[in-house]
Amino acid sequence: MKGWVLLLIPVFLLFQAGGSWAEQKVIVYSRIVDLSHAITTDMPIWPGDPTPTIEPVATVEEEGYFLNKLCIGEHSGTHVGAPAHFHSGGATIDQVPVELLVLPAVVIDIRGKAEEDPDYRLTVEDILSWEKEHGRIPKGSMVILFTGWQSRWNDPKAFFNADEQGTFHWPGFSAEATRFLVEERKVAGLGTDTHGIDPGNDETFAPNTILLGAGGIHLENLTNLDQLPPTGAVLVIGALKIKGGSGSPARVLAFVP
Amino acid sequence: MKGWVLLLIPVFLLFQAGGSWAEQKVIVYSRIVDLSHAITTDMPIWPGDPTPTIEPVATVEEEGYFLNKLCIGEHSGTHVGAPAHFHSGGATIDQVPVELLVLPAVVIDIRGKAEEDPDYRLTVEDILSWEKEHGRIPKGSMVILFTGWQSRWNDPKAFFNADEQGTFHWPGFSAEATRFLVEERKVAGLGTDTHGIDPGNDETFAPNTILLGAGGIHLENLTNLDQLPPTGAVLVIGALKIKGGSGSPARVLAFVP
Repeated sequence: MKGWVLLLIPVFLLFQAGGSWAEQKVIVYSRIVDLSHAITTDMPIWPGDPTPTIEPVATVEEEGYFLNKLCIGEHSGTHVGAPAHFHSGGATIDQVPVELLVLPAVVIDIRGKAEEDPDYRLTVEDILSWEKEHGRIPKGSMVILFTGWQSRWNDPKAFFNADEQGTFHWPGFSAEATRFLVEERKVAGLGTDTHGIDPGNDETFAPNTILLGAGGIHLENLTNLDQLPPTGAVLVIGALKIKGGSGSPARVLAFVP
Repeated sequence: MKGWVLLLIPVFLLFQAGGSWAEQKVIVYSRIVDLSHAITTDMPIWPGDPTPTIEPVATVEEEGYFLNKLCIGEHSGTHVGAPAHFHSGGATIDQVPVELLVLPAVVIDIRGKAEEDPDYRLTVEDILSWEKEHGRIPKGSMVILFTGWQSRWNDPKAFFNADEQGTFHWPGFSAEATRFLVEERKVAGLGTDTHGIDPGNDETFAPNTILLGAGGIHLENLTNLDQLPPTGAVLVIGALKIKGGSGSPARVLAFVP
């Protein structure tokens, strides 16, 4: 009966609304999965990025209400990156159209390969092999690399996995795979449970440069990817609309059939 | 043909998934409306709350990538309030279940009354009269008061509308209407395009105290409410998952049939 789901998700209903034909889209779901880590002051932070602070400025006892001041880098915690993150003149997060914040998710599980080789880079062959099993990656998808790094989140040392020279080691997209996904599959974005869609030891940031250069967005530091199916989930990306921002910490919810 | 929409929205499809019967929910939409103001350093800020700052910590020219540090109060800009905002021991924003972040929206337009009287408070009679036209407010809704204040956003003085004594004047929910919505209609939250679901001159914060005390959430400083129908839209509330937070600046998207 699982075929029903696949039939329902892409269904576009056409009907006359107010005299004109309006295209109706449908999100079918049975559960909502939160792909966001909690924002804490001791979460893993990219070297050079500000350490987050969460400090009370009013309390129920004193002012009658409680609230904190939050200070955080735009790319800390679970976050979105906008084209301006790597390209001067690229769209800032407030300019990214809302349609780019609602995307079908494709999940490529490379946990096995990542466990054997923390420098593993997703190849075009990996993608073609994934497609043989799950079908062609739809245009406009968010393609998420599930590396298993989400389980290292509470151990920043293991999460960054730096060697003695300070080079990071975590898996990511290869430049070729990124180019293939952007040019041949016309994806809208790339995501991962590590701190970068770029492999830790890719100091050229090739995937980000290619993807954001094409107007795409990234999602980094995702979690709960084990609760997503390979296809069929729809993401709603709650990025703050920061004027002129390079990106934003975000609440990312997955609607899973 | 508009009846089709009404038939489709509440449809719950039952089918066997993986051997067990799973309840499937459906969001039908033809457009996405962004209910969030952009976060800027000169937006209206509640007295005593921190002035937001957005400052670059890395640039494409120097570091190869651009990002800002954002400092902001949890209740600045378009934001969500969690029970802990008014009640010690109430749920903090990271504890609010994801189901509370996906809510059907009900919009009550009081622009006419608000223009005549900036201190107008929504009454139980207003609600009953709204229900005569649009049907009973569904359990678990987010009831949004559309006051017209969204058009004052770029003029902080007009937005707060303080008198010579410093008392604010904007419309809100009355205590009675709040109690009715929470107790008789079991709503999940209340929203508004002003800086408070509490009327500007209600120094007891009655609506917030009642709503958040019942475990509800608020949405304040909303915009684009003129683009929402009275019923039928579904909100997805992108609140940051701030550990121990009283609430959060948020991206609020409305899915409109």
